[in-house]
Amino acid sequence: MRRKEFEAADYEEIERFLAERHDGVLTFIGEDGWPKAVPLNFAYLDGKTYFHGSKQGEKMKGLAADPRAEFVVYEAHAFIPSYFSDPYLACPATVFFRSVRMRGRVEQVEDATEKAQALGALLRSMQPEGGHAPIDAGDPKYASSLRGVAVMRLDIEEIAGKFKFGQNLSEPRLNKVLQGLRDRDRPGDARTIEEIAAHHPSYRNP
Amino acid sequence: MRRKEFEAADYEEIERFLAERHDGVLTFIGEDGWPKAVPLNFAYLDGKTYFHGSKQGEKMKGLAADPRAEFVVYEAHAFIPSYFSDPYLACPATVFFRSVRMRGRVEQVEDATEKAQALGALLRSMQPEGGHAPIDAGDPKYASSLRGVAVMRLDIEEIAGKFKFGQNLSEPRLNKVLQGLRDRDRPGDARTIEEIAAHHPSYRNP
Repeated sequence: MRRKEFEAADYEEIERFLAERHDGVLTFIGEDGWPKAVPLNFAYLDGKTYFHGSKQGEKMKGLAADPRAEFVVYEAHAFIPSYFSDPYLACPATVFFRSVRMRGRVEQVEDATEKAQALGALLRSMQPEGGHAPIDAGDPKYASSLRGVAVMRLDIEEIAGKFKFGQNLSEPRLNKVLQGLRDRDRPGDARTIEEIAAHHPSYRNP
Repeated sequence: MRRKEFEAADYEEIERFLAERHDGVLTFIGEDGWPKAVPLNFAYLDGKTYFHGSKQGEKMKGLAADPRAEFVVYEAHAFIPSYFSDPYLACPATVFFRSVRMRGRVEQVEDATEKAQALGALLRSMQPEGGHAPIDAGDPKYASSLRGVAVMRLDIEEIAGKFKFGQNLSEPRLNKVLQGLRDRDRPGDARTIEEIAAHHPSYRNP
């Protein structure tokens, strides 16, 4: 069941999340009719998501036959143990996370300039410090690599974010979770508290 | 294209990886015929993978109509910038990772004891320190929660691991990557060097 309180209403928030992440899972229907799940690095550019890979194989065959795809990006921020808010039941144990799902159709990019731009964006997100010659369709040193690599473009038809940071919790329970996170203070817990503050309707500064 | 040199031949290696990870993406065909990608926590138990969730919604409807599913677990270990091994071209930039894909059919678990066992395994992997009453179908405090939650079981028909740690690199290029990782020394880089040592045919102790 999709719970409305976890929906990321804000498209900018979705774009910020996508800019922070490097990989997700591309889902499509294989030639054998089975659903397929392939982890891939991605670059998100103006309503399109780009991937690269081999020109052969199940992805290319499956998507050529049926271009419908869903791509999901996920980040687990904090595991919330049950005992933060309940001394007996295990049920309150949960994970606070952000995820974005996008669906659309995947096309192979054939244009050398668009290919070079997509690969440049992919690399910029992973290697922002540079340290390589610009990926340029006109550079003869890149020409054969550009011809050899497959670049795929997901033209997004629908996109939705689910950012779960305890929005379903009552204020007393949320306060116990916040106290638990402050006491635990693992890497990421401070960031999680910030996300709770940004998303929970009854969060108050301590 | 699936490259043979990245295949994890060792089933124990696959199980060790699954025991270290807590989430993955479940892929199935939705009621609307589109492929769906849903991030989920999981517990792997004796050739079966368990998930839990709401009894309503797209997962339950889609899988009830077509139980075929693929579940993928992924961990990015290290980004390898192109300049570790090439001063000009961006092409050698890559990610060293482990992933496991499993496919099979998903069934709803109705038996209260199996449900409790699956939820216990899910929780143990996230909250090994305990701190809750055992999840027991006979405990009246758990009874209504157990009835209310959906537990799904993926009966695995095929499972395959892809562990990519530079197995395709020549020895001179691998040595440049190893040197780059040693110099960079980010969190995770020492672990990545261990994985290269375990997987690369021509790795030698420095």
